[in-house]
Amino acid sequence: MEIAHSLQQTPSSYIREILAAASDKNVISLAGGLPDEKTFPIDLMKPMLEKLSEMPEVFQYGETAGYAPLLSFLRDYFQLPETHMAMACTGSQQGLDLIARAYVNPGDKVVMEAPSYLGAMQVFGLVQANILSIPQTPTGPDLNALETCFEQESPKMFYAVPDFHNPTGICWSLETRQKVAELCTKYNVALIEDAPYRELRFSDEALPLVSDFCPQHAIVLRSFSKIASPGLRIGIVTGKRQYLEPLVKIKQGADLHSSVPMQALLLGLLQHPDFDQHIDAIRTLYKTRYDVLFASLKEMLPDGCEVKNVDGGMFIWVTLPECDTFALAKSLLSNGVAVVPSPVFYADHSKAASALRLNFTNATPEELINAVARLAAGLQVQLNASNQTLVEA
Amino acid sequence: MEIAHSLQQTPSSYIREILAAASDKNVISLAGGLPDEKTFPIDLMKPMLEKLSEMPEVFQYGETAGYAPLLSFLRDYFQLPETHMAMACTGSQQGLDLIARAYVNPGDKVVMEAPSYLGAMQVFGLVQANILSIPQTPTGPDLNALETCFEQESPKMFYAVPDFHNPTGICWSLETRQKVAELCTKYNVALIEDAPYRELRFSDEALPLVSDFCPQHAIVLRSFSKIASPGLRIGIVTGKRQYLEPLVKIKQGADLHSSVPMQALLLGLLQHPDFDQHIDAIRTLYKTRYDVLFASLKEMLPDGCEVKNVDGGMFIWVTLPECDTFALAKSLLSNGVAVVPSPVFYADHSKAASALRLNFTNATPEELINAVARLAAGLQVQLNASNQTLVEA
Repeated sequence: MEIAHSLQQTPSSYIREILAAASDKNVISLAGGLPDEKTFPIDLMKPMLEKLSEMPEVFQYGETAGYAPLLSFLRDYFQLPETHMAMACTGSQQGLDLIARAYVNPGDKVVMEAPSYLGAMQVFGLVQANILSIPQTPTGPDLNALETCFEQESPKMFYAVPDFHNPTGICWSLETRQKVAELCTKYNVALIEDAPYRELRFSDEALPLVSDFCPQHAIVLRSFSKIASPGLRIGIVTGKRQYLEPLVKIKQGADLHSSVPMQALLLGLLQHPDFDQHIDAIRTLYKTRYDVLFASLKEMLPDGCEVKNVDGGMFIWVTLPECDTFALAKSLLSNGVAVVPSPVFYADHSKAASALRLNFTNATPEELINAVARLAAGLQVQLNASNQTLVEA
Repeated sequence: MEIAHSLQQTPSSYIREILAAASDKNVISLAGGLPDEKTFPIDLMKPMLEKLSEMPEVFQYGETAGYAPLLSFLRDYFQLPETHMAMACTGSQQGLDLIARAYVNPGDKVVMEAPSYLGAMQVFGLVQANILSIPQTPTGPDLNALETCFEQESPKMFYAVPDFHNPTGICWSLETRQKVAELCTKYNVALIEDAPYRELRFSDEALPLVSDFCPQHAIVLRSFSKIASPGLRIGIVTGKRQYLEPLVKIKQGADLHSSVPMQALLLGLLQHPDFDQHIDAIRTLYKTRYDVLFASLKEMLPDGCEVKNVDGGMFIWVTLPECDTFALAKSLLSNGVAVVPSPVFYADHSKAASALRLNFTNATPEELINAVARLAAGLQVQLNASNQTLVEA
């Protein structure tokens, strides 16, 4: 049976391949985007896990939009305006897939920063979107390039990760947030704000969501995978009713609804009086790991490599002198450290600046230090070889 | 934001609308397809529900194809050939959606029986399949029509519910199963065998799956919603590796993977020594209700209405003298009984013979008897009115 044309254009997920190779016990993986299993608030979930057996209603078919008590709780939790609704999805990844399926025709223009989240590129690739890339600056997307793009290309939507971007870790400034919201409103471009790392902020107060400045032009994807548990597969999408109703319609065919016991479990967790304290503990843990990784990189990386500090999230982005980062990642793997090379985060691989994404949430400080030592040694060899090639050429 | 063209062609789910109206306490609903909440094997799931809090690994991201211990168990449970694999989906509904997305281009031909499962028509509608309908006989699809269709139209796949069909309750004969498998092989048409009601057999031995006769040309969708719990949203798809790998690729973008705690819970249930006994108890309960509904219909239905016996499943199909079944369903609702009119089960509503689908699994015997009394009274009025109109015309 021949596969559909849409699927023929989707490259296989390089990350999955690296993750598979990285499961080798001799490899320290900074390649994935996994939270540390030890952070899962199982103690806080336990009371609800045990109560589920007294709630037969959660084992029945449920509403497509989600478990009513959860949706009702989220209305306050996210302080949704009267015009808005929340829906539960099978992970926020499904929310993104539903948005793409509900709104994007083949060839429709979708704007993303470059680099960008791989899973979003997959989803928009499946609906055969025309992905337009905007360069990223240290404070967010290049605003001039964004306005030119909105003005000249009339795209349908702008997909963005303003808080601790995957892969670069960049957090948009307040000014950028306001300006992007203004542009989305002015040019009638829907903002798809993906916020999976928002709560993983190491210091200072959270900035407003971009969508707070353009609530009628935005859909927000909320994840609990990084602060609760990814295994549950419950993410939340919020936005005005008119934007979300087509998503509910697609979800009916896609999986009828998401697991109701898992939605009830999430509700129990969010209502637990210790949940905020739990998030603080995760922040502290990840900040410690980040500090170790950042300091080790600063200390050990060869000249020509650059690393920028981040204020939260799960990743550090290391820019390198120009080189074949796929070959580098492969050679580093044989050196015992798994990383992700930059081109996989670009719709057009050839436009990628040489860089690596490093994750710091799922390795101990000792592992992080060892990983950087292996990384630095491997990089040194690679860079020497590149220089040699340049000299010879 | 304008919705995608594919969504513009999908009618809203009439069943959902009826189900909403049917939640009125004064209405007895025979409209849904819900198992009785009291059948959920919560006692058998309880040990695993409590054990989950000692299994941190199930709260982590999981494999897209499914929870390895479950997939490994299913290999034996379904006696899969070496060439085959199982994958876990967010309900078997997602399996169907993944099949449609992985294989169907707009305009590709998909064969279904008429009438057919509404959720399948929605899914194939979303990918803009060209749905070809084959009439159904009491022993399965009309084989001559099916062969002519396969020969002349070269469809990509044939979607079918051979065991206790939704909506008609028909169970394909052994001969039909063998012949359909032969035709799928001969004309290289993939069989999509949807088996959600297979275990709900009231008597005799189960017939082989159709796909048992053409394992290299079939994908099978397995559900636990009717024998365990629909709320979990865990369904299983089996088929040869080559058929399923594209589904896994789509699922990566669709939701990464299905809930791991729910997969572990299902595994615990399937391994419970009392699970087979639990299925027997459900069968007995539903057979009792079926007997009551069937006998009441035979006794009370006006002349001109026909009801055929079934050997399992959840539905009875009542054929009526020609009438406007939408108007009838609406008037029956105001009479206190919810049913589903036949046209919603046809890709082309205008080709539907007048009929109603009645569910017997989620009402007590008393409710079933009362529902039939209301149905019979409402039908009598409607038929008298129709006759009157005919006389006047």
